Amino acid sequence: MGNSFGEIFRVTTFGESHGEAIGAVVDGCPAGLALAPADFLEDMGRRRPGFSEFASARREEDEVRILSGVFQGLTLGTPIALLIENRDARSQDYENLGFRQGHGDAVYMEKYGIWDYRGGGRASGRETAARVAAGVIAKKILRELEIEILAEAAEIDYDELKRAMAEGDSLGSTVICTIRGLKAGIGQPVFNKLEADLAKAIMSIGGARAVEFAQGRKAAKMRATEHNELDKGILAGISDGNDIHIKTSFKPPPTIKKGGRHDPILAPRACPIIEAMAAITLTNHIFLSFSNKIKTIKAAYKTALRG
Amino acid sequence: MGNSFGEIFRVTTFGESHGEAIGAVVDGCPAGLALAPADFLEDMGRRRPGFSEFASARREEDEVRILSGVFQGLTLGTPIALLIENRDARSQDYENLGFRQGHGDAVYMEKYGIWDYRGGGRASGRETAARVAAGVIAKKILRELEIEILAEAAEIDYDELKRAMAEGDSLGSTVICTIRGLKAGIGQPVFNKLEADLAKAIMSIGGARAVEFAQGRKAAKMRATEHNELDKGILAGISDGNDIHIKTSFKPPPTIKKGGRHDPILAPRACPIIEAMAAITLTNHIFLSFSNKIKTIKAAYKTALRG
Amino acid sequence: MGNSFGEIFRVTTFGESHGEAIGAVVDGCPAGLALAPADFLEDMGRRRPGFSEFASARREEDEVRILSGVFQGLTLGTPIALLIENRDARSQDYENLGFRQGHGDAVYMEKYGIWDYRGGGRASGRETAARVAAGVIAKKILRELEIEILAEAAEIDYDELKRAMAEGDSLGSTVICTIRGLKAGIGQPVFNKLEADLAKAIMSIGGARAVEFAQGRKAAKMRATEHNELDKGILAGISDGNDIHIKTSFKPPPTIKKGGRHDPILAPRACPIIEAMAAITLTNHIFLSFSNKIKTIKAAYKTALRG
Amino acid sequence: MGNSFGEIFRVTTFGESHGEAIGAVVDGCPAGLALAPADFLEDMGRRRPGFSEFASARREEDEVRILSGVFQGLTLGTPIALLIENRDARSQDYENLGFRQGHGDAVYMEKYGIWDYRGGGRASGRETAARVAAGVIAKKILRELEIEILAEAAEIDYDELKRAMAEGDSLGSTVICTIRGLKAGIGQPVFNKLEADLAKAIMSIGGARAVEFAQGRKAAKMRATEHNELDKGILAGISDGNDIHIKTSFKPPPTIKKGGRHDPILAPRACPIIEAMAAITLTNHIFLSFSNKIKTIKAAYKTALRG
Repeated sequence: MGNSFGEIFRVTTFGESHGEAIGAVVDGCPAGLALAPADFLEDMGRRRPGFSEFASARREEDEVRILSGVFQGLTLGTPIALLIENRDARSQDYENLGFRQGHGDAVYMEKYGIWDYRGGGRASGRETAARVAAGVIAKKILRELEIEILAEAAEIDYDELKRAMAEGDSLGSTVICTIRGLKAGIGQPVFNKLEADLAKAIMSIGGARAVEFAQGRKAAKMRATEHNELDKGILAGISDGNDIHIKTSFKPPPTIKKGGRHDPILAPRACPIIEAMAAITLTNHIFLSFSNKIKTIKAAYKTALRG
Repeated sequence: MGNSFGEIFRVTTFGESHGEAIGAVVDGCPAGLALAPADFLEDMGRRRPGFSEFASARREEDEVRILSGVFQGLTLGTPIALLIENRDARSQDYENLGFRQGHGDAVYMEKYGIWDYRGGGRASGRETAARVAAGVIAKKILRELEIEILAEAAEIDYDELKRAMAEGDSLGSTVICTIRGLKAGIGQPVFNKLEADLAKAIMSIGGARAVEFAQGRKAAKMRATEHNELDKGILAGISDGNDIHIKTSFKPPPTIKKGGRHDPILAPRACPIIEAMAAITLTNHIFLSFSNKIKTIKAAYKTALRG
Repeated sequence: MGNSFGEIFRVTTFGESHGEAIGAVVDGCPAGLALAPADFLEDMGRRRPGFSEFASARREEDEVRILSGVFQGLTLGTPIALLIENRDARSQDYENLGFRQGHGDAVYMEKYGIWDYRGGGRASGRETAARVAAGVIAKKILRELEIEILAEAAEIDYDELKRAMAEGDSLGSTVICTIRGLKAGIGQPVFNKLEADLAKAIMSIGGARAVEFAQGRKAAKMRATEHNELDKGILAGISDGNDIHIKTSFKPPPTIKKGGRHDPILAPRACPIIEAMAAITLTNHIFLSFSNKIKTIKAAYKTALRG
Repeated sequence: MGNSFGEIFRVTTFGESHGEAIGAVVDGCPAGLALAPADFLEDMGRRRPGFSEFASARREEDEVRILSGVFQGLTLGTPIALLIENRDARSQDYENLGFRQGHGDAVYMEKYGIWDYRGGGRASGRETAARVAAGVIAKKILRELEIEILAEAAEIDYDELKRAMAEGDSLGSTVICTIRGLKAGIGQPVFNKLEADLAKAIMSIGGARAVEFAQGRKAAKMRATEHNELDKGILAGISDGNDIHIKTSFKPPPTIKKGGRHDPILAPRACPIIEAMAAITLTNHIFLSFSNKIKTIKAAYKTALRG
């Protein structure tokens, strides 16, 4: 019902922004991976509001507790439950101010007949902290396979950003994500093409309004003779061994005038979220590829059960 | 493993372009829907190569046979198997000419260690005929709910297209898809947001390189003050009752010099495929919404079992 | 990967017996259901070791904390995370005593190459506390639909049980579960027949060795003329409106000589677990039935989004 | 919605008993497996009515056509569509005779509001022909891994059977299935325990009323001291390297007086169906095990993509 992602490496998240806690359950992580709370610090910090000069001033501690699935510093192969307490959240600080424009308040009310008015509830950007935590595990797995994912905000005009903030306004923005080191042969045909699952993963991030692969929208303006040599990374849904480039466009975040508690631009904080979603997607696709060929499953069966 | 789409309204497709047949199994179609072979003619015709002046000259009959799930003209609630024979395909006409640039040939070989060299096999555009057939059923269901989906190629420069064809070249293109009449409250939070599932559905179509919602890539260049009033259709992953606009950019199709058997532009034939994928996605999301609220499930339980 | 159950009403559990906590995430619970920590007390108490004279003497607090998905006493339609801390567990009390016979220790080591030797880890019976907690929610939903589930241990010979305990031995046992009030028409054809999903649900409980429906094993000794009138509850995978009877046979639990920390018989504590698994299975099947008929989906669509 | 089984090796079936055809789509079969129509003959013959003296006299041709997924005698890694035409079925021979006792007719009508009265439709035993065809592929995969599955009817009293037939009656029956050669470490913890998925697989066969593992129902009457040494095959949901024994009890099939077109006993024809369901279940679980350990996934990744 919307809160799980992946089949064989599966992430389930939970939690309202101003409830007791948010968190994730990661199922399908191989056993024997070293995992400790310190592994989460860097990416959780990158996502945190207040990290950069231009992000919201509110403070989120975002300490990740590992509740299960790890024993003596190694993953057990069992579900890894990650918990992030909403320490500073005080629901008594909130009163119902009605639906905010540009947020999910009204549609949640329509869908569920009830609505958590304390800062957005499940539709809040805070939900992405659990994705980033789960993504840390996926990235550790991918590092073992020498696969790297790096997302960066496209060049931001800081003068324009300062002006917008001064006027209580916000800016749209763009993130470029690059996947390096993925071997050829990962992905599925037809519906679960690698770019299809990556598109879903990224479009599920709040505020994303466009996702582009390789030459993206520019390809619509090209002839084959100028395009084909540039069309690299994924072909027919399957990786070809070249770098994969994904461009995501974010809308300007909705502004809430009173108190200025908002992000003026989404791209900087979206980078670790995009990396997390791409990593979760790739890990799932890689594990699905282990039974591709009859002549390798015999080795896989023996190795997996003896290794 | 990539050949099914949807959870509660689920489409599974099969078939190589030059094998005996392609087809789809549609599971989760409600019982009692009128369905006959004639229902498929219009959309199958729109997808067919040779339909328009600018599409490939090869002929595909694309007659849809209903093998199961329909009795006395009505759906039974059981799986509907749809079969489209590859009548004109003669595998003996094909010899292995090696990997074609811009196609999936090489990555399929890498992934599976075997490759159907007869015209692309599973990675051929022919696979989409089965999607269109399944989409016809989804569209019939949506029509009962007064929901319409219309995809149209953005304005094509026919002079430029003729020049490209004369030079053995092809053009990139764009399709705009509009969903009308969808009530507010459809979609899921977090990972299965409506735009996320629609993005996956559409990016799974061969040749798609970008997908955009509402203001799309333009939103990245806007301030909130100019953007928010325009940001309609889906909020926080859930429909808001306004029309939904999706823009898809297609690459120029790869060209194969000898014999000229290729499409010079993808957009015209992609329209019924995009409609089909959007319809399948919406049908699934609508059915998932029937258990949203405790106070309506009692009525749903009684109605469903007595109605 | 084994830790989720259900499609549209989905329960995911996590936690090792002697880790920090165990818990469950329940996705797909309708919004608007009253839910409070007190709702869990009765069933958690029924499952707890030490509850009855004949169960293990160790104490498990089993207080269920609701971390998400509930606001002002009502479910939000978002994932409900339930947390049960392992308060008394002290991993320093445990040393690796090697594989215990009749437990999963050795096969977990084979499968994962690592093994949580603190009391069974994920394979411990403690895992079922999370199922019972999730089952409480399913049972509350079913109660709204006037469906009741009751599991009872078949008649236990207490003299024999006392003798077995005195000898450090344990007994096999049987539970009878009855489902009352389920309307005709619930279940799916073919693979997800109602009895198939119930069989899976129940055989996933540790120690179960046989599951029987209606006349069960006795049916294999009957003629049609004596059997057919008795074959009630589920036909062709679909409920027929009669009571459903399920009989589960449990092995004698493995005994661990030192310290006597074991259950001498599984049936009494298994009752709330069986009820929970049956309730989760039924809730999922009921929600899947809301899109059975074209003539009721129109009403369901309107009601769900307005109700 | 009930017509698919398995996650990573997934079988979807379709078809009414007296419609045009029945069939299966097998997704997730590794590429490179030799597969030809002749492979299906033996098991299809074992399942066919009229095969043995005591089975129904009607003739089913059951020739399996491979429509997709195979090229030059080898599987492609793409979906394998299998088609079995209902050649002798003539729907004009059937008139609506109302609901038959002991069949699914009435509950299908309740659930779907429509009902295929031509011989049971989807609820007919004929549906199992598609399972057997899919199972042939799973068994070929398992044979590569030196795993064997054999199901046999427990000893039948033929004198009693002849008497029952003479009286227009039918008998209940039992099948014993043995799995040999499965290594330790296959299965999943908690909900998808190997015995749970096998129980579902087998209880989804029409007429099954009980399923037992290892000592089965007898375990409920044993003490640990007499039971534990016998409790082999699966522990904590995971195979332990010993043979697995499964006992299935079938009800006496419903009798239809006019014309005598019925099976007098289910066990003989159920054997290939049980083998098929067990094989599909095991193949799926084996493929899921390839990502169990971090130290073997590196080898799996390299091997799968180069092998």
